[in-house]
Amino acid sequence: MDQRALPHFQEELQTLQQRLLQMGGLAEERVRAAIACLVSGDVDGLDAIASGDEPVNELHIEVDRRCFQLLALYQPMAVDLRAIVAAVKINTDLERVGDLAVSIAEAARRYMLHPPVKQLIDIPRMGDIAQSMLRDALDAFVRRDTSMAQRVLDEDDTLDALKSQIFRELLTYMLKDAVAVEPAIDLILISRHLERIGDHATNIAEDVIFMVSARDVRHQASPLPDR
Amino acid sequence: MDQRALPHFQEELQTLQQRLLQMGGLAEERVRAAIACLVSGDVDGLDAIASGDEPVNELHIEVDRRCFQLLALYQPMAVDLRAIVAAVKINTDLERVGDLAVSIAEAARRYMLHPPVKQLIDIPRMGDIAQSMLRDALDAFVRRDTSMAQRVLDEDDTLDALKSQIFRELLTYMLKDAVAVEPAIDLILISRHLERIGDHATNIAEDVIFMVSARDVRHQASPLPDR
Repeated sequence: MDQRALPHFQEELQTLQQRLLQMGGLAEERVRAAIACLVSGDVDGLDAIASGDEPVNELHIEVDRRCFQLLALYQPMAVDLRAIVAAVKINTDLERVGDLAVSIAEAARRYMLHPPVKQLIDIPRMGDIAQSMLRDALDAFVRRDTSMAQRVLDEDDTLDALKSQIFRELLTYMLKDAVAVEPAIDLILISRHLERIGDHATNIAEDVIFMVSARDVRHQASPLPDR
Repeated sequence: MDQRALPHFQEELQTLQQRLLQMGGLAEERVRAAIACLVSGDVDGLDAIASGDEPVNELHIEVDRRCFQLLALYQPMAVDLRAIVAAVKINTDLERVGDLAVSIAEAARRYMLHPPVKQLIDIPRMGDIAQSMLRDALDAFVRRDTSMAQRVLDEDDTLDALKSQIFRELLTYMLKDAVAVEPAIDLILISRHLERIGDHATNIAEDVIFMVSARDVRHQASPLPDR
C-alpha cells in the first residue's frame, strides 16, 4: 500500500506548508518593520524587533519536528520526499531571516546614536526587494511554480548591485568626514544583512526548482536524473 | 525486514559521512589558506582561493544526492533518520563555509590594494578558532560525541568577543585617519565572515546533539521526546 496516497499524508503536508508560510510571513514582517523603524527613527520599535524573535524560533522547531514525523511515519517518495527535504532546508533559511531581522534592528539601533547619514540612500529599496523575493520564493514553493522561482533567482542580481552602489556612496561620506564613519558602517552592515535575506530567498527558489523538477540549479550543475 | 539492518545501509551511511568530512576538510583548508595568504600578502594565492570553490560545490551536490538516495531506498528510522537529516543540514553549512572562504579571499584581495592596517590585530586568531570549531563539530558528528559538540557551542562566545574587540580597535584607526577607512572595512568584513564560519560550526554542533539525543538545543527549547 502506498502510504503517500493516504489523505492524512497530504493533510499533514498542507499543514507543514502552512507553518512555513506563517513563518515566512512573520520573518518578512519583521524585516519590513525593522526598515520602517529605521526610516521613522522608532527606537522602541527597533528594541521590540531585536528581542522579538521567539515566534519564528518556535515555528522553526515545530516545522523541523513535523518534517521528521512525516519522513518517519509515511516514508514518502519522489516529489513528496523532495518536498519534505525542501521544507527542512527552507525552515533553516527562514530562521536565519528571522535572525537577520534582529541584526538589522540592532545595527539600526546603533545607527540612531549618531547624526544621520543623508537619506538612507537605497536601503529602503533593498528592503522592499528582499521582502518581495522572500514572498515570491515561498509562493513558488506552495504553488510548485518553477517560473516564479526562476524570477527570484534573477532578482538577486539587482540586490547585489544595490549593495555595491550603497557601499561606494557610503565610502565617499566616510572618507570626507570622520563623523560619518560609525553610522555609515551600520548602514553598510544593514545593506549586507538585506543582501543575505536575498540569498536565503535564492536558496529557497533553488530548492523549489529541485523539488518540482529534480533539477539541481545550484552551482550551475548538470541536471540530475529524477529519483 | 528492517532495511536499516542491511550492511549496505551502514556502508552507504559511512560513505556519506566520509564525503562530509572530505568537504569539511576542503572548506576548512580554504579558510586556513585565505587567512595565511592575507598574512603573507600572497595575491596569487588569494585569487586561487576566490575562484577555487568548485570541489566543495561538487561535493555539496553529491552529498545531497546521497541523502535523497538513502532516504528513498532505506526509509531509515530514529537515529539513522536523524543522521541523514543532519547530513542534509551539515552539507548546507559546509557549502556556506566554502562561500565564506571566497568572501574572505575577495575582501583580503581588496585589502591588499591599500596601505596595511597595523598587524591584522586578532584576525589570524579568529581564523584559528573558527577552523578548530569546524573541525571539532565534524569530529563530533562522526563520533556522535555530544560533549565535543557542546564544547563547540561554548567556543562561539570567544569568537563573538574577538569580533567585537577587533571592530572597536579598527574603528579607532578609522576615526583617526581616513586612509585607514577602506582597508579597515575589509578587515571588519573578514572578521564577520570568520564569525559566520563559527556560526556554521555551531549549527553543526546543534545538529549533532539533536541527532544523538533527539534533544533540540536550538533557541534553548525544552527537550523533545525521542521519535
